Amino acid sequence: MSDKKKIYKPKPISGFPEWLPEYRAVEQAWLDKIRAVFESYGYASIETPSVEELDVLTAKGEDVDKEIYVLERLQADPDEKKSARLALHFDQTVPLARYVAQHFAELTFPFKRYQMQKVWRGERPQMGRMREFYQCDIDVINVDKLPIHFDAEVAAVVYEALESIDIGRVQLRISNRKILLGLMEALGIEDPVPVTRFIDKLEKLGAKEIKHILIGEVGLTPEQTDAILDLAGQQDLSKIKPQNEMMAEGLEELSFVMDQLKHLPVHGARADLSIVRGLDYYTGTVYETQLLDVPEFTGSVCSGGRYDDLAGSYINKHLPGVGISIGFTRLFDVLRQANKIQPGPKSPAQVLVVLPSEERRTVAAEAARNLRERGMNVELYHAPQKIGKQMGYAEKKSIPFVWFPPFEDGQDHEVKNMENGEQTKADPKSWSA
Amino acid sequence: MSDKKKIYKPKPISGFPEWLPEYRAVEQAWLDKIRAVFESYGYASIETPSVEELDVLTAKGEDVDKEIYVLERLQADPDEKKSARLALHFDQTVPLARYVAQHFAELTFPFKRYQMQKVWRGERPQMGRMREFYQCDIDVINVDKLPIHFDAEVAAVVYEALESIDIGRVQLRISNRKILLGLMEALGIEDPVPVTRFIDKLEKLGAKEIKHILIGEVGLTPEQTDAILDLAGQQDLSKIKPQNEMMAEGLEELSFVMDQLKHLPVHGARADLSIVRGLDYYTGTVYETQLLDVPEFTGSVCSGGRYDDLAGSYINKHLPGVGISIGFTRLFDVLRQANKIQPGPKSPAQVLVVLPSEERRTVAAEAARNLRERGMNVELYHAPQKIGKQMGYAEKKSIPFVWFPPFEDGQDHEVKNMENGEQTKADPKSWSA
Repeated sequence: MSDKKKIYKPKPISGFPEWLPEYRAVEQAWLDKIRAVFESYGYASIETPSVEELDVLTAKGEDVDKEIYVLERLQADPDEKKSARLALHFDQTVPLARYVAQHFAELTFPFKRYQMQKVWRGERPQMGRMREFYQCDIDVINVDKLPIHFDAEVAAVVYEALESIDIGRVQLRISNRKILLGLMEALGIEDPVPVTRFIDKLEKLGAKEIKHILIGEVGLTPEQTDAILDLAGQQDLSKIKPQNEMMAEGLEELSFVMDQLKHLPVHGARADLSIVRGLDYYTGTVYETQLLDVPEFTGSVCSGGRYDDLAGSYINKHLPGVGISIGFTRLFDVLRQANKIQPGPKSPAQVLVVLPSEERRTVAAEAARNLRERGMNVELYHAPQKIGKQMGYAEKKSIPFVWFPPFEDGQDHEVKNMENGEQTKADPKSWSA
Repeated sequence: MSDKKKIYKPKPISGFPEWLPEYRAVEQAWLDKIRAVFESYGYASIETPSVEELDVLTAKGEDVDKEIYVLERLQADPDEKKSARLALHFDQTVPLARYVAQHFAELTFPFKRYQMQKVWRGERPQMGRMREFYQCDIDVINVDKLPIHFDAEVAAVVYEALESIDIGRVQLRISNRKILLGLMEALGIEDPVPVTRFIDKLEKLGAKEIKHILIGEVGLTPEQTDAILDLAGQQDLSKIKPQNEMMAEGLEELSFVMDQLKHLPVHGARADLSIVRGLDYYTGTVYETQLLDVPEFTGSVCSGGRYDDLAGSYINKHLPGVGISIGFTRLFDVLRQANKIQPGPKSPAQVLVVLPSEERRTVAAEAARNLRERGMNVELYHAPQKIGKQMGYAEKKSIPFVWFPPFEDGQDHEVKNMENGEQTKADPKSWSA
């Protein structure tokens, strides 16, 4: 290496977050807890490649094109056979659809899967949006018919997953699109799309403004508008009179789901008919989730719903499903920036074993090994430096116990609790914290 | 959706592997075990973004350019301010270097980190190489001087990590480049690079062929060649006479490392002076790893070594380090294809709770909840179908226990062990498998 080396000073890349070890420890612990809850309900892990063929990602023809990152090999051989263009996935639903279609014959249905991977969206960097983030998704897919049982189950699972990480009170808000769509049909409204689009903004803009828009812009009558806003504001399902079969079906399904969630705390789940979700993709139950104790977090932590046909673009089977997705990294980052996350330790070690001298290395290494064999995370200090310096290292890395192997043959091992300063004799083959 | 929909039949993308749930379960278990070993030695997790700025990836000027995947937004706004080109990382060493330089002031040294992420290499697809794969890396970085302690520690850590997953006998082969480089200096060989490059191929080509090349192509004398091949074949370090300070230092370091690994099984680690690693990046200890019981696996499962300066391209600090990297996905895939991996269950559930009838749903759901609260993974069957059908589902997903909640009030719960067929009364609040 030449003496005058060129330094390329690195800086953060906007939209691609990374954490210091003490925050990464918390992120990892959260991911582990969420995963444990997913598995406790029998959801199986899958992982798909980070890329899909561009044609697969755009097969549905939705307006996602501009968010897609396409891969280009920096120095592709010009004589090479052209292969399909590859692009990073922007969610885990399209990959799931492709996965189920591709491996259809080898999967057991109902197929219950979870998936916790990074996804990428090529948003304009200046918008401050994340361009790489974790999503934690669960979905259940079945062939031809999917029991309503799962609409309640996925809600219970994500509720429990969010409760397992320490983020205060969580509230699920649940609706069923058939109720509002049924009402619109009964009211003779031919195009429900603009109405649902504005009802989705009800909480943000307020009933007065939405009424104004539905009459003035969408062209509904005041009576139609009132009927729709009455329904959207109604929290007591027993007060809703179904006007047709679709409404009755939606009410029955939503009542079943709410009934199955009765074991949650009072604040935990409520029917909210103003929830419609933007996407027309959803055909029945829809979910959003609010954090009641984190005003810094606007919008929904996790959301999802039931869809009629997962993989119609890739396979000639009718595959209804229901699923919810936690926008993990945004949740983590908002809480971190709001100082609501207590950073973890800088080292996973619970014990630092002191190295008294080069001569005592074997004794010290064996103590470390004995403790590790019993499931503890243990660092052996790397050089026979002054004991004060070794203890300073434990302090800096928040390692809670310091272990002193015998400095001479015949002496005992001792362990010091760094929090209360207590130091006691201990045997590395039986001690526990 | 129109009746005549276009079907885009998906197919695997060459070089981007994915597994069925029963293999993903094994992959996940392996990753968990490796991680647990890394943490048991006090290595802290970090995760860096999947991308780096292209200039960061190419700052070292090595010949990696052709393997790099650059990201292009499918529809970037032409009026948008040009930002730096981003590319997927091809290893975890460059990202580590960038991370350490960027967060230098906030890290505690020696900095012990592990990193288990996917990396990408835009290899020609027809070569059958992987283009996306997991690497499991540990490295220790210090400022100015890094104790030799860590050269032994990282070897012990990866040995234990590989032993924790069930892949037969593992053998570390360890050398120290200073020994061979010192000898070459003593022999008056001016350019060591071509010699190390061919010694690296010694096992593959054999001593006779290498001798031929070193004399005929590289231009060494027969005496120089014999001295080098003698050294490369010498497994007893005590028989090597150091010719200069560099050789003596290398021998002392290698002896220390081997001494620290004496607790491993006899086959576990051996000094092998023919190991030089291709990269000139390494300056001292170097490692390779063989699987003794898996002939299908050629080459090294994990390898690494000591380097003099991690992040010289990004920061004006002297940061020596030592690290090893497990090529995880290739290991997993070779063993899977050799039928040496027993697939895991299709569901993480240990218990399937039967749903006797719609009326008994509350009782069944509560039993499932009670079992889950005590740490078990439990599926509640989704519909009150025939009991045989429900048990068939448990069988297909290899769920080992089926739980029967009381079909009428006053009856007991019962649980059936699907392996031996035994069925016994059980209480969901106290039963365990």
